[in-house]
Amino acid sequence: MTAINIKRRNIRTDLAIEAREMLMGEVQEEIPGVQTQTEDIGEMTVTRVHITTPDAEEKMGKKQGRYITLEAPGLRQKNTELQDTVSRQFTQELLSMLDLGPEQTVLVVGLGNWNVTPDALGPRVVKDLLVTRHILELQPETLGEGFRPVGAIAPGVLGITGVETSEIIQGLVEKVKPDALIAVDALAARNLSRLHTTVQIADTGITPGSGVGNKRMGISQETIGIPVIAVGIPTVVDAVTIADDLTDHMMEAIMQEAGKDSPIYPVIQSIAEGDKRAVMQEVLEPYGGRLMVTPKEIDTLVEDIARLLAGGINAAMHPAIRSEETGKYLH
Amino acid sequence: MTAINIKRRNIRTDLAIEAREMLMGEVQEEIPGVQTQTEDIGEMTVTRVHITTPDAEEKMGKKQGRYITLEAPGLRQKNTELQDTVSRQFTQELLSMLDLGPEQTVLVVGLGNWNVTPDALGPRVVKDLLVTRHILELQPETLGEGFRPVGAIAPGVLGITGVETSEIIQGLVEKVKPDALIAVDALAARNLSRLHTTVQIADTGITPGSGVGNKRMGISQETIGIPVIAVGIPTVVDAVTIADDLTDHMMEAIMQEAGKDSPIYPVIQSIAEGDKRAVMQEVLEPYGGRLMVTPKEIDTLVEDIARLLAGGINAAMHPAIRSEETGKYLH
Amino acid sequence: MTAINIKRRNIRTDLAIEAREMLMGEVQEEIPGVQTQTEDIGEMTVTRVHITTPDAEEKMGKKQGRYITLEAPGLRQKNTELQDTVSRQFTQELLSMLDLGPEQTVLVVGLGNWNVTPDALGPRVVKDLLVTRHILELQPETLGEGFRPVGAIAPGVLGITGVETSEIIQGLVEKVKPDALIAVDALAARNLSRLHTTVQIADTGITPGSGVGNKRMGISQETIGIPVIAVGIPTVVDAVTIADDLTDHMMEAIMQEAGKDSPIYPVIQSIAEGDKRAVMQEVLEPYGGRLMVTPKEIDTLVEDIARLLAGGINAAMHPAIRSEETGKYLH
Amino acid sequence: MTAINIKRRNIRTDLAIEAREMLMGEVQEEIPGVQTQTEDIGEMTVTRVHITTPDAEEKMGKKQGRYITLEAPGLRQKNTELQDTVSRQFTQELLSMLDLGPEQTVLVVGLGNWNVTPDALGPRVVKDLLVTRHILELQPETLGEGFRPVGAIAPGVLGITGVETSEIIQGLVEKVKPDALIAVDALAARNLSRLHTTVQIADTGITPGSGVGNKRMGISQETIGIPVIAVGIPTVVDAVTIADDLTDHMMEAIMQEAGKDSPIYPVIQSIAEGDKRAVMQEVLEPYGGRLMVTPKEIDTLVEDIARLLAGGINAAMHPAIRSEETGKYLH
Repeated sequence: MTAINIKRRNIRTDLAIEAREMLMGEVQEEIPGVQTQTEDIGEMTVTRVHITTPDAEEKMGKKQGRYITLEAPGLRQKNTELQDTVSRQFTQELLSMLDLGPEQTVLVVGLGNWNVTPDALGPRVVKDLLVTRHILELQPETLGEGFRPVGAIAPGVLGITGVETSEIIQGLVEKVKPDALIAVDALAARNLSRLHTTVQIADTGITPGSGVGNKRMGISQETIGIPVIAVGIPTVVDAVTIADDLTDHMMEAIMQEAGKDSPIYPVIQSIAEGDKRAVMQEVLEPYGGRLMVTPKEIDTLVEDIARLLAGGINAAMHPAIRSEETGKYLH
Repeated sequence: MTAINIKRRNIRTDLAIEAREMLMGEVQEEIPGVQTQTEDIGEMTVTRVHITTPDAEEKMGKKQGRYITLEAPGLRQKNTELQDTVSRQFTQELLSMLDLGPEQTVLVVGLGNWNVTPDALGPRVVKDLLVTRHILELQPETLGEGFRPVGAIAPGVLGITGVETSEIIQGLVEKVKPDALIAVDALAARNLSRLHTTVQIADTGITPGSGVGNKRMGISQETIGIPVIAVGIPTVVDAVTIADDLTDHMMEAIMQEAGKDSPIYPVIQSIAEGDKRAVMQEVLEPYGGRLMVTPKEIDTLVEDIARLLAGGINAAMHPAIRSEETGKYLH
Repeated sequence: MTAINIKRRNIRTDLAIEAREMLMGEVQEEIPGVQTQTEDIGEMTVTRVHITTPDAEEKMGKKQGRYITLEAPGLRQKNTELQDTVSRQFTQELLSMLDLGPEQTVLVVGLGNWNVTPDALGPRVVKDLLVTRHILELQPETLGEGFRPVGAIAPGVLGITGVETSEIIQGLVEKVKPDALIAVDALAARNLSRLHTTVQIADTGITPGSGVGNKRMGISQETIGIPVIAVGIPTVVDAVTIADDLTDHMMEAIMQEAGKDSPIYPVIQSIAEGDKRAVMQEVLEPYGGRLMVTPKEIDTLVEDIARLLAGGINAAMHPAIRSEETGKYLH
Repeated sequence: MTAINIKRRNIRTDLAIEAREMLMGEVQEEIPGVQTQTEDIGEMTVTRVHITTPDAEEKMGKKQGRYITLEAPGLRQKNTELQDTVSRQFTQELLSMLDLGPEQTVLVVGLGNWNVTPDALGPRVVKDLLVTRHILELQPETLGEGFRPVGAIAPGVLGITGVETSEIIQGLVEKVKPDALIAVDALAARNLSRLHTTVQIADTGITPGSGVGNKRMGISQETIGIPVIAVGIPTVVDAVTIADDLTDHMMEAIMQEAGKDSPIYPVIQSIAEGDKRAVMQEVLEPYGGRLMVTPKEIDTLVEDIARLLAGGINAAMHPAIRSEETGKYLH
């Protein structure tokens, strides 16, 4: 169907759950090769999507593997109790994806640009991590039991370093030889309602073009030889995605009002695609695809979700922190 | 006309030049009470809009007074020569709006939130200003001739301080007793092509609701008793503005394609307004009006225009800097 | 005594407890007009010094009033439990100094320069405060019961604004009309062992020349008409103080080794003062008094104590936070 | 000689010129295996020290190789003209140490901790570099002629990443395969008069324990296989160095005053070492060697010298910038 093709071309989402929704909106049934399981825990919904075939990978536009999504619309409000609940669940899901012995080393990479607020999630999370690798090597006695070696870096983006982030990471992994890598990044969603309310954890690594900026990197078990868990929260919607949605919704609204038998119906459907493209090009000029839509209060939203992720990762990494009351070592 | 009313309700611009364009798009002639003069200087266009009557103020939605706009689309590319040209012109226009003796004191206020990249223009400019008031009071001999007393502050936004920025400024003005105030702020434009390419200087002060955030402040000669020059560069477009533009353009495209005599024409026109509102509400949920559209490379764009404004203000304030080659004291 | 006069000239401390120690080191008995009370609470010592006479004020070099000091050497190590204990005690002592009705407004001022790590304590604390004044005015229902109106600002230092901080505060207080002011600042201690381990709370306001930088401000009940509680933690020792201590200790060591009856004794005593001054001038050239001594790990130390103070102030301001488990709303 | 040994144990300097001065203060003649050449250029002195033998390396405590020092005491004052002069000379000296074809790639590494103002020099310089490697690979046409591929990274310090900086750099060099590396770092000097006034360029790489923090890294041609030019400016003096200097000066002053034939002379000389150590330990407790002495206006000093170095490196890297008037592309 034409409409779908248009969508597939313009709409971008880093969330497997949204890719699935879009696809199911068309076919109205579960996609072959995609297994989905949903669980409601209080104000939070946990969805586990498993893409199991190359064909499903192709259709979804998402790599084969497991994607876990925690959704909690209440996170948009400053709700510290809900933040704790989501953080704890995030810890559990992260542990379920990693299969680590107690002494194995983990490297956490905060992707994104610290100078652009909605892209600063990765670096912000790294700032709040409990980094222990050097202490366990040099003065293990100062830490006590229950800590795993964790290293962390926020390498910056291509425009700042002149070097592909994947190259930096690969070089680092070859030297540090961690047993697993956690890559944290700000994501782009299709729907504004997902912003700052949805955590995605995936065992597929980071695929080229993901994230808020255009990072063109591929970091995955295939390229670096160790498990790569990608953790992200959407902070922006691409302007093109919203533009596309708006024009589609507008045409649907007009068609609906006019009625299926109206002479308008075929006219609109026939002119839709070309006009849409031209209109979007005109309105989004001169930035085109390089525009993001983000809430005005982006600073406090990123601050809150960065703390949630950092706290959750700290607890997942170190049993000594998991056993403490939540929040103790968040900082 | 309905279409106009829709536009007037949803579209926001802090630029007088855009308000005028929108109005003239409808009436096709110069608005009574608005005097406009345009001058092309190389790659830059200087437009001087003078709103002279209460009626024009009402129609334009902009306070009576003078608005000078420097437009240079080339600023989007890193063009240091053009940056210098615009900065020099900005200095001249700023001086033409201020009428100051050589020893009179100026206070520069950087409005906006330093934690939100597109709203950080004001604080960034303040960071690069040559602040002299304390030196001229305590050790004037270290500076030499040709410097005016300049103070500067970036007070932060309501969400950070809990205090209206206008209250902070008023208190400060009563203590410091400057002879004029320059307020620098990031602006919202209607058109993306204005972002980072257009400087507006106005002698009207800052009116409530202007700027990227919702600053609700009124700072003007009437409220603080001294001339207030507002300086700004657009860094965002409101998502609602783009949504409105997109749906309008889409409908126009459909109507144009269908032809004036098509039966579609009245149908679309009649259903337009209500549907548009519903569609926009649905797509922009749950953030509604609190969404901004901004380029992904916002960090370097803000950095560049902050330097342009800071350099221009430094030169306007201090004859010793004007006489030097440009750039010398930018920092 | 000569030695004392030398000390009084060179040694600087912002802590009343240290001023008292220095004076008592000489006179070996409690100073008239100074009441002191000490209490040990686990790993923490609470000392309450009350300067009650103009004569004691003159001798101590500290304004008449109450100074409460919490000392916990363990804070130098990252000890989250001890941090909680000190934070809770700090909340209680702060409340004991303020006498506020539940709806009265408090303004918190973070003094110091955010660009100089050891001077950034005040601004860092302000960043973590729960600011409520605007919410209680505009949308009180979003907060619920148990919150007081709190505003906060970090105005920057004279070198950044060109305006005395006291002028900025006075202007602000006249506009906002708070019922009390809390001023947070990094302090200078005499002894390195106090750095990051000692919290001082005083009801005397901030006196000129205090703090890490030279802020030359006087903010007190007399100047702004409302109670001013000064809160601070030492982050630096003046290089001159350490130099003075070193040379004094060295001479004492030599004299002790030589013995009281040695012919060296009077020689050293006679030459001491002039030489000391010359040596210190030579070694500390060309910065002289404008040098600070601070630990290399100053970043994490300031981060930790800023959280301690912010958490303690938040709990003191808002009963809703006090009743929660500690740490909940620290952020 | 005892006095010398004391000094050698306690005094730390990263400047070859100071190591030589200390050694010559003792032996009163040029050190064998060290060639030195001095040139006065206006207000600036250029000193070229060449350490040519293993024996000289051992004595100086500095690796064999070339060390160029630019000294300009006037840099402490904000003197933009002198900054330009030093920056231009720095560019020339840097080029004289590198032997690069026009298309060869250079990687610049900014060492140090961005959260500690005096240690932030390296990261600050990286921030102002013109990074071109990715542009020359992806869109060379946007740059034009006269640009070399330059990459840049500020990896952070061990306490932040948990990974030795040298490991990060080695991994990066293996991936990016640059033809040369420039490492920028804040240095420790022996004399306060060197702070912010002395630029050192060395072709020896960075040796363990250098820099403001304890970075324990060795980055040199031997370890990474490409030329490593180390660039640095002192921003701190170790507190131990100042303490050592002070006590030495004090004892010398006493001895001088007492006269060579005084009975004090042998007494003081005999008791010196042990007492000195005890006194320093007592006064510098509990931080000992982990204390730095730095000017209070460290923020503006670091800002100024970071611009000087960034401008000089940009000009050295890119002929297109060298041919422009200075300052054009500094940013």
